[in-house]
Amino acid sequence: MTQYSVFDSEKALDYVASLAPLFNLQAPLNCYEFGDGNLNLVFRVSDSTGRSIILKQALPYARCVGESWPLTLDRARIEASVLKLHGVICPETTVKVLHQNNQLALTILEDLGQLAILRTALNNSETFPKLSKDIATHLATTSFNYSDFVLTPAKKKSLVSEFLNPELCAITEELFFDDPYHQHERNNFPITLTERVNALRSNTHLRLEVAKLKAKFLSSPQTLLHGDVHTGSIFVDANTTKVIDPEFGFFGPIGFDLGSFVGNLLLNYCAQQARIESLPQRRQMQTYLISCVAECLLTFEQSWKDLANAHSLDVTLRDPVYIEYFVGSIIQDAVGYCGTELIRRTIGLAHVADIDNIEDEQARLAVAQHTLFIGEQLILNSSSCTSQKQTMQLLLSLLN
Amino acid sequence: MTQYSVFDSEKALDYVASLAPLFNLQAPLNCYEFGDGNLNLVFRVSDSTGRSIILKQALPYARCVGESWPLTLDRARIEASVLKLHGVICPETTVKVLHQNNQLALTILEDLGQLAILRTALNNSETFPKLSKDIATHLATTSFNYSDFVLTPAKKKSLVSEFLNPELCAITEELFFDDPYHQHERNNFPITLTERVNALRSNTHLRLEVAKLKAKFLSSPQTLLHGDVHTGSIFVDANTTKVIDPEFGFFGPIGFDLGSFVGNLLLNYCAQQARIESLPQRRQMQTYLISCVAECLLTFEQSWKDLANAHSLDVTLRDPVYIEYFVGSIIQDAVGYCGTELIRRTIGLAHVADIDNIEDEQARLAVAQHTLFIGEQLILNSSSCTSQKQTMQLLLSLLN
Repeated sequence: MTQYSVFDSEKALDYVASLAPLFNLQAPLNCYEFGDGNLNLVFRVSDSTGRSIILKQALPYARCVGESWPLTLDRARIEASVLKLHGVICPETTVKVLHQNNQLALTILEDLGQLAILRTALNNSETFPKLSKDIATHLATTSFNYSDFVLTPAKKKSLVSEFLNPELCAITEELFFDDPYHQHERNNFPITLTERVNALRSNTHLRLEVAKLKAKFLSSPQTLLHGDVHTGSIFVDANTTKVIDPEFGFFGPIGFDLGSFVGNLLLNYCAQQARIESLPQRRQMQTYLISCVAECLLTFEQSWKDLANAHSLDVTLRDPVYIEYFVGSIIQDAVGYCGTELIRRTIGLAHVADIDNIEDEQARLAVAQHTLFIGEQLILNSSSCTSQKQTMQLLLSLLN
Repeated sequence: MTQYSVFDSEKALDYVASLAPLFNLQAPLNCYEFGDGNLNLVFRVSDSTGRSIILKQALPYARCVGESWPLTLDRARIEASVLKLHGVICPETTVKVLHQNNQLALTILEDLGQLAILRTALNNSETFPKLSKDIATHLATTSFNYSDFVLTPAKKKSLVSEFLNPELCAITEELFFDDPYHQHERNNFPITLTERVNALRSNTHLRLEVAKLKAKFLSSPQTLLHGDVHTGSIFVDANTTKVIDPEFGFFGPIGFDLGSFVGNLLLNYCAQQARIESLPQRRQMQTYLISCVAECLLTFEQSWKDLANAHSLDVTLRDPVYIEYFVGSIIQDAVGYCGTELIRRTIGLAHVADIDNIEDEQARLAVAQHTLFIGEQLILNSSSCTSQKQTMQLLLSLLN
């Protein structure tokens, strides 16, 4: 069983059964597949006592991205390895890897079925008091510990090489930074947005800032990123926050993950304008979301500074003045990347259910106009956002 | 002959003899070693018709850097591979690799014995009309062709991984950015400079800028650098300029090589103050050197812009406004790295003969004070230097 083959439920069950003691499962086992089948197969294997695990297997293509975009199976190795490296640092907020088989492109994970997917929960107007602090702490702590402040240059270079991840990076490079700003068949927006999109594309300053963000994404291996921190990659309940699915993981600019997460909160904020009819309820949800953004940025900013001031090993980078400057530059990058997330989710290939599920076409269009506006303004003004405070000032001026 | 062993002249001759037709050499051959023996063995093998080649073999340690600093033999592979990749782009200015054997850590190169080493020639007040244009064109063309503007992200990532070069990078990381700004036994300066060095080290702004430059050196794989473009790595005569010795090659910030080269011209400029007694002759040499700096920066700036505007492949980076910005950022980085070269060559481990060979102690000290001052000012003011013009304004204000 070392040659790759696509699993069905029976094969998955047999595989898990052969290792069952590892997972504390007792025969007889039950197995079913429940993934969306676009990128991966996801099986749940459970025993009669109610214990269960997840077996995730990568498929050699991605139906959701263009026409049968072939995708390396190596992403299973990347995903499991990132989870392990992040899990060592943040065990509380990283889904646990129980077993990894790179030949079969499969990973066995703890079952988080008792938790909700954050995107779905937010779309149902649920709120989670620990969410923003948990994610901010997770992102700050993992990003700090795999940065030049902590790793020796030799260790860092060897990890960079282990996580080059060219194929999945190419998806981000093209979908985030190229497609939305150029004519491309992969783009997806209603004809009524054409004029707005053309205006965006002809904005010289915007193109400059997007090029800077792309260049940094290509050539700034600051830390081991998750690479895809959207609200569909987070499981939650009132007490728990778990990050999953880092198959886009690679060494990139620290602000990218933070910006992606904040971007998804803002997409939900804008979508709620059309999702919740009752004004008081809408206000409440939007207030929750913006306070999440504020708390996330503040916690991240403070945690990074505290970590760097207390635990930096590099003799030159640990200078307090540099740490202050560097954290400011992360926030600035995050604001820019946040803007690109808003834009690409509105007019690029991959949309979000938050907006796409809005039934009323006019309402959906108004939300799209809003996310484009905020995305554009965040990118254009990111250079003035080197702190949580400055970022929130800008954001509040854009949202009101 | 696939296991590494240190060559003597006899072994070198036998090795070359076994491949003689490759190099167009005819028996009988003659061989002698003439390297400085610190890092590498360098043999010249010639035949009776006057044809000759150079056989360079890496030694597993570097006597010159600290006490028997062990050094990977893999640097022979790096050096030969960088020469080949740069040679494809700039055959006129790159020493030609005739043969490469990674197991034996050896490279056979064209013999440039008819040319002079630039550092020695400058110390003898010789001038070379094509030098600055040749080096600027070489650096612009090689750095552009291995940048994100040209390489596909996948090709780039794979090359980054081939040229991680952690051991030689560590030397630069420590000697350029750490040691001079901290107490370290490897530093080397007269006790009379102590107060000046302490002032340098307690300059908060300087430490911030040096940390930024180190962070960029660690995590900004913009192109395949030579990694050690000082005037001892360049062979010249009136018509020819050849770059040799890229064993420090890796993917790093484009401005590093440019800054190193300009830094070495400035070190020579300052040294000439004490080297040439006759005022008119000194003025003439210094005018030549500063015009080299001006021409080098201008040629580099213009060539990069021309190349990027005509030949960029990346759909987002090829934006003319971004190209303008990006070239400005290279110049800015180069000014900063130039400053670190001046400082580390004055108070760090590895000095330059230009200054060290000045016999008069007071005169040597005055030169050191001057190079420290210029180095410091370049680092502190680099953010205002995003063009050749601005850089020359700053430089002229510092030199006069």
